[in-house]
Amino acid sequence: MITLKTRRTIRKYQAREVAPDLLDDLLQMACRASTVGNMQTYSVVVTRDAANKAKLAPAHFNQQMVFTAPVVLTFCIDLNRFSRWCELRDAVPGYDNFQWFVTGAVDALLAAQTFCVAAEEQGLGICYLGTTTYNPQPIIDALQLPRLVFPITTITVGYPDETPEQPDRLPLEAIVHDEIYQDYTSDRIDALYAYKESLFENKMYVVENGKETLAQVFTDVRYTQKDNELFSEALWEAVKKQGFNPKK
Amino acid sequence: MITLKTRRTIRKYQAREVAPDLLDDLLQMACRASTVGNMQTYSVVVTRDAANKAKLAPAHFNQQMVFTAPVVLTFCIDLNRFSRWCELRDAVPGYDNFQWFVTGAVDALLAAQTFCVAAEEQGLGICYLGTTTYNPQPIIDALQLPRLVFPITTITVGYPDETPEQPDRLPLEAIVHDEIYQDYTSDRIDALYAYKESLFENKMYVVENGKETLAQVFTDVRYTQKDNELFSEALWEAVKKQGFNPKK
Repeated sequence: MITLKTRRTIRKYQAREVAPDLLDDLLQMACRASTVGNMQTYSVVVTRDAANKAKLAPAHFNQQMVFTAPVVLTFCIDLNRFSRWCELRDAVPGYDNFQWFVTGAVDALLAAQTFCVAAEEQGLGICYLGTTTYNPQPIIDALQLPRLVFPITTITVGYPDETPEQPDRLPLEAIVHDEIYQDYTSDRIDALYAYKESLFENKMYVVENGKETLAQVFTDVRYTQKDNELFSEALWEAVKKQGFNPKK
Repeated sequence: MITLKTRRTIRKYQAREVAPDLLDDLLQMACRASTVGNMQTYSVVVTRDAANKAKLAPAHFNQQMVFTAPVVLTFCIDLNRFSRWCELRDAVPGYDNFQWFVTGAVDALLAAQTFCVAAEEQGLGICYLGTTTYNPQPIIDALQLPRLVFPITTITVGYPDETPEQPDRLPLEAIVHDEIYQDYTSDRIDALYAYKESLFENKMYVVENGKETLAQVFTDVRYTQKDNELFSEALWEAVKKQGFNPKK
């Protein structure tokens, strides 16, 4: 599993197509991921057509990968298919609620990540688009997603046309807790973030953005409270509109 | 990637321990998964101690895997660590909202599934516990999770002591949509679920539960509307209590 240790996100792709048979094989492997009650509460929409990519692009802030990747995959929570089956079999489905929004998200994301691992093993590169949940309504419209279907993540896929440096990660002890969650003291935060803050590219990042600390680049530029709250509201409205109400 | 095609969930484990170095190596690979803005908005709590497993077990309906697996991993959305860092660096964090609940869930689940793929490549077996989001409060209490930390899934890990049959999956065309979501007609549902419904074990499942259709086993026995709505409300209350409010 050398790929898992050396992997990095790929944002520039060759023009080379991804063969349909290869894509199907990777999707078959994705469907072998764990799934709640073997219900497979997810769907995947495959976008290859340039006009359809252009329809999705604004929702992803027109990031170049949406246009240049040969394949764009939108992974969706899907309780529509299962509920349809229930209705046709004299069974009353009860999956239009928040629990199944989250359960479907787990299902969809395990399949998505399995796809990515398998794709990278085959020499493909991938990029996740976190923008999927920022303003899901345009994606719902573009892909014509019915009630109880919700886009949870998007992956662009293609043969790499770049070999970026592998980014840093926090030391493992920042992430892993032994038996009980160990809350973070100031000293521990300083130690755990020291390497990240010492990196030349991160220091440049602070200077380029005219900030005093790396954290301020995140809070004042990249992911601001104001944006977060706007996106939260749009997401929440879309979740309810697609039928996943927290309360009856 | 033969493992990805042949894998199956493992619920019975040998007494053999998982070596700490191997576990660390697998967790390191998990941390190489894609993560929003390289923020790593997740934590993993490792439970090996029998007394601590017993504390977690009731939240998972006392499923045997929680007691018998040598390692239980609770993957958590974590905006606490990042927010603490911000506060210590003169930056005002704005991650206590629904958008970052979902974003943190994506992060945590990509790491969780990468862990599972890597673990299975090493001969380990895993089982996801979907019960994690049914009633998260007891897990929050047992693991002492602070505000902005939320358990999104749990994985039991160990060396397999069983070789179950690989379960069926829906045909790929049930899951994958070409360019636009193709809603399901009755005929298509019949065709897509025919194989699943034809399986001997599923037919037995219907008989054993005294039902008329397989779908009714799901709606009337396994995941009832009443339970779903109760669990939705408990989940929703816990999401809010941990600080991920949809609106200010």
